[in-house]
Amino acid sequence: MATMTIRDIARICNVSISTVSRAINNDPAINKKTRDRIMQVVRKFNYIPNNSARNLKMTESNTVALIVKGINNPFFQGMFPYFQKELVAAGCDYFLHTIAGDADEVYVAEEIAKEKRLKGIILLGGTMDYPDVVLQSIHVPLVLCSVAGLGVNDPDGGSQVSSVSIDDEKEAHKVVSYLCRKGHRSIAMITGVRGDTNVGMMRLRGYRRALEENGIPFDEDLVAYMDESNPEYTEDNGYKMMMHLLKGEKKFTAVFVIADRMAIGAYKAIYDSGLRIPWDISVVGFDGIELTKYMEPSMTTVMQPVQKMTESSVKLLMDQIGGSTERRHLLYEAELLERDSVLDLRAVPEASPV
Amino acid sequence: MATMTIRDIARICNVSISTVSRAINNDPAINKKTRDRIMQVVRKFNYIPNNSARNLKMTESNTVALIVKGINNPFFQGMFPYFQKELVAAGCDYFLHTIAGDADEVYVAEEIAKEKRLKGIILLGGTMDYPDVVLQSIHVPLVLCSVAGLGVNDPDGGSQVSSVSIDDEKEAHKVVSYLCRKGHRSIAMITGVRGDTNVGMMRLRGYRRALEENGIPFDEDLVAYMDESNPEYTEDNGYKMMMHLLKGEKKFTAVFVIADRMAIGAYKAIYDSGLRIPWDISVVGFDGIELTKYMEPSMTTVMQPVQKMTESSVKLLMDQIGGSTERRHLLYEAELLERDSVLDLRAVPEASPV
Repeated sequence: MATMTIRDIARICNVSISTVSRAINNDPAINKKTRDRIMQVVRKFNYIPNNSARNLKMTESNTVALIVKGINNPFFQGMFPYFQKELVAAGCDYFLHTIAGDADEVYVAEEIAKEKRLKGIILLGGTMDYPDVVLQSIHVPLVLCSVAGLGVNDPDGGSQVSSVSIDDEKEAHKVVSYLCRKGHRSIAMITGVRGDTNVGMMRLRGYRRALEENGIPFDEDLVAYMDESNPEYTEDNGYKMMMHLLKGEKKFTAVFVIADRMAIGAYKAIYDSGLRIPWDISVVGFDGIELTKYMEPSMTTVMQPVQKMTESSVKLLMDQIGGSTERRHLLYEAELLERDSVLDLRAVPEASPV
Repeated sequence: MATMTIRDIARICNVSISTVSRAINNDPAINKKTRDRIMQVVRKFNYIPNNSARNLKMTESNTVALIVKGINNPFFQGMFPYFQKELVAAGCDYFLHTIAGDADEVYVAEEIAKEKRLKGIILLGGTMDYPDVVLQSIHVPLVLCSVAGLGVNDPDGGSQVSSVSIDDEKEAHKVVSYLCRKGHRSIAMITGVRGDTNVGMMRLRGYRRALEENGIPFDEDLVAYMDESNPEYTEDNGYKMMMHLLKGEKKFTAVFVIADRMAIGAYKAIYDSGLRIPWDISVVGFDGIELTKYMEPSMTTVMQPVQKMTESSVKLLMDQIGGSTERRHLLYEAELLERDSVLDLRAVPEASPV
């Protein structure tokens, strides 16, 4: 078969050359039906576009790396489509690089920046207790998204690297204060590993502060820490930690679980113990993953503003790529989604802790 | 600060140079504590390894692309950690490239293969109704994992491109036959879009064949097709499709949902309609995602052998990279997980369809 040109494809499809080009590059401006029709012809004739112009652009590199720590985390998984949309809209090629929970994300970012010609990196998840000098060894624009750690996201100080996140301590404080307002005084917590320096620590701080403000003494026995040998935010860990709390001697009427996925495991542990949600135990999650809406009962949780966070992360990165040297720390407000998993104890005076 | 060498790091840590190298390369052979100690020093001194040797290797390219169609699909998301493990064990660097549900996966694969120096590509998900001549335009080793379509995975014919999958028709037949054995004769189905050429079509065929073998006439009114304007395997679509079935005139005692995530939405629709699982309606899912175990009641589903499928995909790719020209089509057996969401109607003679 003679080699086809883009002109041939355009002629066959009865469209302009630029329309063929838009179809091939999956430009959102093109009508889907038109694109499908053109791509059918492209495929039929096995047309390989002459990419010299495009490749030239690629040599300049239009690629952004999204490095994800915690590929198993459905909260991050839920962010991928948003990042995809935003990065494509910003005209970037991108790739996802996933790293294991115990890998060194800064080292990985350095390596990727060296080995690939990148325009920038967005680091999603992980702890960021690195000194700035280490972060600055990543010689491409960098934005931290949903990265926790003391002071990292402090708008008045913080790291020299731009960041986008929620205020984990404040949001945990908000949700535990809500439980107190609903009349709960014995509130358990399912959190990260003991000695966590990530969201586990920040959310535990918020929990303690809310208890304190409500005159409730902190009780270490009501906190279930994650097993250090398997520090994953899974249903299985949530199930085990809830069972541990239920078997303990201390009674409680509510539990704050620091990740929705663990809260789903906690639900099951409560049902398997013959108890009912919210009548015997109220449950609140954290993250706001779509799934929580479909739990029975629908789960009260804290919804992180995923769309805003991804939009801003990409925007901050693009600003840096465009030459801005300003570093910003954006903290977004999360939203308490009041659903059906919390009992208002003030309306049930006879209720007592299980 | 004077430039540190790997020798300096080794001296400070009191380990051999090769141990430092292993720590930096995150070699699984190294003890985690030792690695942490070394990486602390590496970070402290902001040591940038001299990568000329590694970069040389990189020029030869050790990189495999995992192209995922359907980033939102939790079944695929559940496969990432396995792919990560297998590819790292095979000594490969890799990246995940996600593509939108309506993008052309073959075109994307061609582009990636041209623009990046790749050792190979694993295509995860998608339909593969391309002629071989098109697939062969991807000039690097290629393996299709979990790709459906008539004949693609046929061990006795099939495509010239190696593939790893389950037999979707057979597994759907297995699960619907199981419902029949439990006494169900009015079995609804929640499937893909009308005219699906992917798993939706294959699983619908299995459903029809099982009904036929059991002398049950196929009833189009008992099949809920996905809305073409939003063809995603989401809880929300499962919820809507289940509501559609429940509002229909036709009664049924069981529903086969072709993806676990949609089945979770179906659960909620059943509860919101004041019905009980499995007493009023039995539900079976498909995929075997971890989450189904934690539903209330635990969901009966078909578990795909994710670990075997990822292992084999990587092995087939490595064989090709190593020079093998053999093409293979591996079909794995899935496992019916009998849990608590199916009622044995033979044990409840008085039960009648809702």
